[in-house]
Amino acid sequence: MSEIAHLGPVELLTPDGDGSLHFFTEVLGMEVEGRDGGSVYLRGWADYQRYSLKLTESDTSGMAWLGIRAWSPEALERRVAAVQAAGLGGEWTADGAERGRGAGYRFRGPDGHLFELYHDVERYDPPEHLRPSLKNQPQRYTGRGAAVKRLDHVNILSADVRADRDFATDVLGYRLYERIELDDGTEAGAWLSASIAAHELIYTKDAYGAHGRLHHLAFWVDTREECLRAADLFLDHDIHIEAAPSKHAIAQGFFLYGIEPGGNRIEVTTGGYFVYDPEHPPTVWTEAERRKGQAWGVKTVESFHTYGTPPVDAPAG
Amino acid sequence: MSEIAHLGPVELLTPDGDGSLHFFTEVLGMEVEGRDGGSVYLRGWADYQRYSLKLTESDTSGMAWLGIRAWSPEALERRVAAVQAAGLGGEWTADGAERGRGAGYRFRGPDGHLFELYHDVERYDPPEHLRPSLKNQPQRYTGRGAAVKRLDHVNILSADVRADRDFATDVLGYRLYERIELDDGTEAGAWLSASIAAHELIYTKDAYGAHGRLHHLAFWVDTREECLRAADLFLDHDIHIEAAPSKHAIAQGFFLYGIEPGGNRIEVTTGGYFVYDPEHPPTVWTEAERRKGQAWGVKTVESFHTYGTPPVDAPAG
Amino acid sequence: MSEIAHLGPVELLTPDGDGSLHFFTEVLGMEVEGRDGGSVYLRGWADYQRYSLKLTESDTSGMAWLGIRAWSPEALERRVAAVQAAGLGGEWTADGAERGRGAGYRFRGPDGHLFELYHDVERYDPPEHLRPSLKNQPQRYTGRGAAVKRLDHVNILSADVRADRDFATDVLGYRLYERIELDDGTEAGAWLSASIAAHELIYTKDAYGAHGRLHHLAFWVDTREECLRAADLFLDHDIHIEAAPSKHAIAQGFFLYGIEPGGNRIEVTTGGYFVYDPEHPPTVWTEAERRKGQAWGVKTVESFHTYGTPPVDAPAG
Amino acid sequence: MSEIAHLGPVELLTPDGDGSLHFFTEVLGMEVEGRDGGSVYLRGWADYQRYSLKLTESDTSGMAWLGIRAWSPEALERRVAAVQAAGLGGEWTADGAERGRGAGYRFRGPDGHLFELYHDVERYDPPEHLRPSLKNQPQRYTGRGAAVKRLDHVNILSADVRADRDFATDVLGYRLYERIELDDGTEAGAWLSASIAAHELIYTKDAYGAHGRLHHLAFWVDTREECLRAADLFLDHDIHIEAAPSKHAIAQGFFLYGIEPGGNRIEVTTGGYFVYDPEHPPTVWTEAERRKGQAWGVKTVESFHTYGTPPVDAPAG
Repeated sequence: MSEIAHLGPVELLTPDGDGSLHFFTEVLGMEVEGRDGGSVYLRGWADYQRYSLKLTESDTSGMAWLGIRAWSPEALERRVAAVQAAGLGGEWTADGAERGRGAGYRFRGPDGHLFELYHDVERYDPPEHLRPSLKNQPQRYTGRGAAVKRLDHVNILSADVRADRDFATDVLGYRLYERIELDDGTEAGAWLSASIAAHELIYTKDAYGAHGRLHHLAFWVDTREECLRAADLFLDHDIHIEAAPSKHAIAQGFFLYGIEPGGNRIEVTTGGYFVYDPEHPPTVWTEAERRKGQAWGVKTVESFHTYGTPPVDAPAG
Repeated sequence: MSEIAHLGPVELLTPDGDGSLHFFTEVLGMEVEGRDGGSVYLRGWADYQRYSLKLTESDTSGMAWLGIRAWSPEALERRVAAVQAAGLGGEWTADGAERGRGAGYRFRGPDGHLFELYHDVERYDPPEHLRPSLKNQPQRYTGRGAAVKRLDHVNILSADVRADRDFATDVLGYRLYERIELDDGTEAGAWLSASIAAHELIYTKDAYGAHGRLHHLAFWVDTREECLRAADLFLDHDIHIEAAPSKHAIAQGFFLYGIEPGGNRIEVTTGGYFVYDPEHPPTVWTEAERRKGQAWGVKTVESFHTYGTPPVDAPAG
Repeated sequence: MSEIAHLGPVELLTPDGDGSLHFFTEVLGMEVEGRDGGSVYLRGWADYQRYSLKLTESDTSGMAWLGIRAWSPEALERRVAAVQAAGLGGEWTADGAERGRGAGYRFRGPDGHLFELYHDVERYDPPEHLRPSLKNQPQRYTGRGAAVKRLDHVNILSADVRADRDFATDVLGYRLYERIELDDGTEAGAWLSASIAAHELIYTKDAYGAHGRLHHLAFWVDTREECLRAADLFLDHDIHIEAAPSKHAIAQGFFLYGIEPGGNRIEVTTGGYFVYDPEHPPTVWTEAERRKGQAWGVKTVESFHTYGTPPVDAPAG
Repeated sequence: MSEIAHLGPVELLTPDGDGSLHFFTEVLGMEVEGRDGGSVYLRGWADYQRYSLKLTESDTSGMAWLGIRAWSPEALERRVAAVQAAGLGGEWTADGAERGRGAGYRFRGPDGHLFELYHDVERYDPPEHLRPSLKNQPQRYTGRGAAVKRLDHVNILSADVRADRDFATDVLGYRLYERIELDDGTEAGAWLSASIAAHELIYTKDAYGAHGRLHHLAFWVDTREECLRAADLFLDHDIHIEAAPSKHAIAQGFFLYGIEPGGNRIEVTTGGYFVYDPEHPPTVWTEAERRKGQAWGVKTVESFHTYGTPPVDAPAG
């Protein structure tokens, strides 16, 4: 079992602060939890934390850092020790350095992505106008836009997927559920999870061998109908649809991909399978199998294999 | 074949103008097309006319009048002649007396409901911010609230369902698809349509023998998932849910019933069957069959059989 | 208003009788209503007639004839007179020449497709094991395979779409809701209906200028989820998916296209809009607009523009 | 974190072997994996084990035993030690005593339900006709009946919910996500999970203070549409629908409850929330809150509070 509770929040950079904010609030339907400097804190209606997305105006697009919550204070200590033992360096951030969060440990993964391991965090307490009717729900359901529930998974590009996958399993404690192995032995993608969900953290091969780039952030909705509905929203809000709703072969999730005004790829996702088997043998896909396209034969659009948002050279925020 | 194109717009009265307006715009997701005196004109995103609902602040709730569009100018003349021949009286309204509409003929049906037959009407021309991406769509899809597409059907209470049903078929030219006949021979309900849709105009028996009351207005969404979603919206917007989503036995439509702040019963509906058989034999339900409840056995809540909104004594507007 | 009630049944030819039968019964979930010579009569669970598909083993694939039910005996007489006046020839078939149907008038449309206009027809009376629980339903819902309800629409290829479209509107009385006009003025497609449904009869341009070919038959399900589910069924029954589920721009229907074992293209469809406006102005799409692909940007696969099943030289059955 | 991987398989008893088998195969759509004596082994199409349900003809209905898979051989040893330390007794079963499973430890919980902890188990290897198209899927999707994926959760009645809940958390290592506390302090229900799923093991109060009874077994489908579809299947297969599809307030799952021919209550379920917070504070519902009914106000049918299937006095099989 993993010592990781879940990933998120994530800090996302955008050169078009207004456009991106409009996208995340009006099209995806997230709530503004607060603002701070050039950042806006955003949440889905089922996020238990105060926010799952920190949106920051910047010169560029891309992911500044990816938060990962450890299961317990002890698990945090153990994972930080493992990171240090792996020679990845890093340093502790101060309690409160990030909004509503205790001290974290910030370091770079093998491909240069910035991570922050943390444990202590504040739970969301909704203001009156967002108080839900059902007490087991963190926030009222407003139904605005695609009404995403929460951040679901993150897909990051890597020049060396196998190295990053080993880091995720051996250092962080993720489990590997699926991967792609090309004919020449290269690993082209790895689907990792800390729970029964079919994926939480994904590495896919950077077509240019660049480092530290983001492929996409995925936000969860409960039904495929909501993905279809989100496509109508994208269409009528002039959001570029990179890949129309369909079903992935890998992980069997249902997807919709669009490019938000800041240039980052965003997925609205649902479905997929659950892994209840503690000894689940990872599915390995060959090059030939992947050429068949998605589950129902949809060919993946070329940009999906090449486009990513810039590496981030220095920790933001 | 009927000479009727469809019903609507409808003028709905409310003693709580602000509350009702909030409901129709924020919860049902309709657009304000315009305002005029104490009335607000509202439309679903797929209404081809400028509006399908005229919401008017009043001392009471209930339906002021129900518009019915004749198929052609000639069909209008023929139907008006039939109304007059039936001794129902009535009079022509002036061109433009109702927003965006030509001259109509206003009269009371057998139970006292006010109808207006008309033909000429203006088509909707969306403002820039509501211009759709697909040219075969009257308006942009905003996705706000339940995002109802259009007015679908109207259910009105009658002290004498059979008399009203005969009026609808013989004078207006509706077709009868289903009806309820109680053990004592009384007709408890009649489902009528001018198209392949399983119902457009419904008469159900007034439990108190009152006259001219409204049972409910129904607004269309394309999927059952949107009815379920609307229930979550009702719940978190404090709209009283009178009947949670389920499937009707009669007409097999999927429903959600709530009471809007002005006291009128509103349905969000989808599904049902299509009638392609020009000689479709009406389904007749017995008292015993109706006691089984809805399609999946849900017992109909008592208020559904008794509650209606007030008769309207004088033409509004 | 049209004098046509609806189209269907249709006779479909297949060189692989067993394979096609397996597809229609096990994958689409239709019921065998009867057999007769080399033909099997198949029905959806909501067909009010005894069958909507006559599947006949043959040397080739394609559509043998398309039945069109006139609204009344008088409408049948009028339409036959119109066909004759248009110089299309044809002849009456005997009462009972087709299973469960009265006399019909069989003739060829401008592009050579064989049609049969009829009115008298037998309604379905289910055997005990298919008797439904709800009396307003023609047959029990078995849920087998995609569980299609009924034949929904037919798309036929034509060397001259405009000539065929004029025939459909002027001779048969269909209404035109949408069409494609290429830059050179050629009509590339026409979407016609005899009801509020957005399409029932479609003509699209034959890429090879061939005559009398079939593009596809479409069967109806009530929900988009059932189209998605049908795609999983196609996948696991080795049915070639030509176009994975998505939303059409034209008519806004939701689709799944596959090729049945006999080589005919079959659609599982739902959704689309209703046309309540008796003076609905047809939507005209340009070449540039069609290049954008389907509603959510999915590019249409090349075979969709070229593949059709053979013309039929002589009346079958 | 729990040391439990998941619950299941379960052995279910039925006095109507043929009727129950027909229900599980034709209505729920499970596959027969094998037979052995008076038992039939059944699986959903996404079960990774060979089966998740052992259906055994018997004098009575009810649950014979509930299997619980430990995360690892070491976790199994630790849990067995905890069971013994708790004074619950029990004994090891032989390797292979249950089909496709290694040695297990069988014991009775506080209320008398029989459990079997195990770890070693065989993975499913589908025969040729059930081989799936997607390699990350254990079995072909046949789509038959409700096409349930797998056993999802089990609800058992207890005379003393608090005692059983303490056993589940303290001895087995489950986490508590929700519970009901009546005004007099009695615990009326407890929702427990070993994963992010909102419930896997549920205890609810036995209205008669009886011991060891089963409330229901729940089988998973991926969408709410499939629950609605299952209701149509129940209706047309004469399966008593105890509670039509709607949304639970507790755990927010979507449900359909029916009584299978052997008398056991069966749920078709989907939805609910995920618990990613390792320190998730359990939701506590009061008597007044529960009186409001389900999420959308549906009142729970009386039998749901009282009906259960018999205690089992001796280990079956």
